[in-house]
Amino acid sequence: MVELKPIRHIAIIGTGVIGASWTALFLAKGLEVTATDVAPNAEATLKKFVDNAWPALQRLGLSPNASRSNLKFTGDLARAVAGAQLVQENGPERIDFKQKLYGQLDELLPADVMIASSSSGLTMSEIQLGARSHPERCVIAHPFNPPHLIPLVEIVGGAKTSEETIRRAEEFYTSIGQRTVRLNKEMPGHVANRLQAALLREVYYLVAEGVVSAADVDTALSWGPGLRWGVMGALMLNHLGGGPGGIEHFVQQFAGPVTAWWKTLGAPVLTPEVQKKLIDSVHAEVGSRTIDELAAERDEVLLGLIELRTKRSETVAPHSVAAD
Amino acid sequence: MVELKPIRHIAIIGTGVIGASWTALFLAKGLEVTATDVAPNAEATLKKFVDNAWPALQRLGLSPNASRSNLKFTGDLARAVAGAQLVQENGPERIDFKQKLYGQLDELLPADVMIASSSSGLTMSEIQLGARSHPERCVIAHPFNPPHLIPLVEIVGGAKTSEETIRRAEEFYTSIGQRTVRLNKEMPGHVANRLQAALLREVYYLVAEGVVSAADVDTALSWGPGLRWGVMGALMLNHLGGGPGGIEHFVQQFAGPVTAWWKTLGAPVLTPEVQKKLIDSVHAEVGSRTIDELAAERDEVLLGLIELRTKRSETVAPHSVAAD
Repeated sequence: MVELKPIRHIAIIGTGVIGASWTALFLAKGLEVTATDVAPNAEATLKKFVDNAWPALQRLGLSPNASRSNLKFTGDLARAVAGAQLVQENGPERIDFKQKLYGQLDELLPADVMIASSSSGLTMSEIQLGARSHPERCVIAHPFNPPHLIPLVEIVGGAKTSEETIRRAEEFYTSIGQRTVRLNKEMPGHVANRLQAALLREVYYLVAEGVVSAADVDTALSWGPGLRWGVMGALMLNHLGGGPGGIEHFVQQFAGPVTAWWKTLGAPVLTPEVQKKLIDSVHAEVGSRTIDELAAERDEVLLGLIELRTKRSETVAPHSVAAD
Repeated sequence: MVELKPIRHIAIIGTGVIGASWTALFLAKGLEVTATDVAPNAEATLKKFVDNAWPALQRLGLSPNASRSNLKFTGDLARAVAGAQLVQENGPERIDFKQKLYGQLDELLPADVMIASSSSGLTMSEIQLGARSHPERCVIAHPFNPPHLIPLVEIVGGAKTSEETIRRAEEFYTSIGQRTVRLNKEMPGHVANRLQAALLREVYYLVAEGVVSAADVDTALSWGPGLRWGVMGALMLNHLGGGPGGIEHFVQQFAGPVTAWWKTLGAPVLTPEVQKKLIDSVHAEVGSRTIDELAAERDEVLLGLIELRTKRSETVAPHSVAAD
């Protein structure tokens, strides 16, 4: 087996919100980034994003070589990917666009350079049809926005992706502190967006039916089960919810009520009337608070929670650090 | 209107996990509690629960008069409720049992004493049929377990519950620092359990289908959307997800993809084979960690998160404190 070069230099294709957030993260981890985008003012917008993100990244801890001066920008695709060991692609979610792009990348790049797509809506089996020579090095590495704060990366290959590529992707994102999950099958929305959609469906239903206000359903989530999902996954919580009998006892005791509730869950249709009801109720909840104030509140608590969780997992699981 | 006595003394009926946790919370808030239960060793079990819960309650902040010596226990229902201004009922979830109990309570108690049920599975419209004289003072005040740590209380009246009772319930639980939501209609599972059931359905589906392991679906939730739901409600997050355009822009841009994912969400059947798959995958995730170790990890991070959230809401929303 050929010895692979370590990933030190990353090409970012597409510097919208996701690409910009990846850029900030990679710079904070001490990596070199060359970014490209065709949008007017893309370079200035990207640099502003990175500057705004930097204080949070400093708080979460910069790697020894982290520097914003490790960012280069070019409007030219070939120059952007030259010398990169990884391409993180964040282009528009159109299959014709992506297939053409992957064809170009496949020709431009040596066979051992991994191409990772942030796509949430397309499958790698479709996308990699564009990469005729080396489709095996193409993989989905889907972040949960914004990746410079939220550590989740969902990894899933297409029909032609090699096991080696998946392993390298898991290894790389884990090495910079992200939390990877591996999908064994391609699924619309991967995992996290599906979980979110499942929850939102019932949230929208309860407000649409007039059961609760937006403010109250948000309180019920974020001061109820959401507090626990910020701490631990649902299945682990089921295990603890079973008491000394663990998950076996939980399934025995709660499969009945839970499946009975499933039968009554809503399937709302987002008609213009329902959309208006949701929007009006959200505005009543928001009141006079600006989006900037609320976003600052979200990010402040989010950073504190990530610090808490990271500290805790370092304390209780030294073996998992050693295994990295 | 008759001047109502402030709630200083609470009767707890049923001291299983929920009743014991309410007891600990009320004592920490400086209230007097008389508890009753027919189970053998109920008194000793309750006192042990309160002792175990006390350090966490100290950390979250005791009220000036908080004392574990404000707890009395009796095996006699009439003695338990004598002198109480509120009864918090946590009996078995059987309608015949509850209706009979509410009949007894209705005869024992002056008309101005509120009776709050922790029921998750029954409706107050059914339960209060037992209280022939004063059904209007009966209300559901459903906690999210364990109430001494998780502040959510879901409040919903039955057909005969008075608006005054609902107002008093909201006022009381808010006054001791809980977060109340009001349901305008009775719904199976109220709000929080429905949200949980909606999410669990997709979690179970993805593991049952072999898309991800239990460990990976837990990572995807708790390092992805769960992190944000520990911070803020889903609709407020939608509002912020819309950028400067807020919830209107979010609905415009994401209603399409979200509703498309809805069509692909799973509806698993918990056959013995599926249950075994879930259980085995959870055990692979748990490894050698004991339930006590995991529960300690959960509670440590949970307390930290509640402290973060409480501090933040006191900082940014002094008006809401003044309005209490």
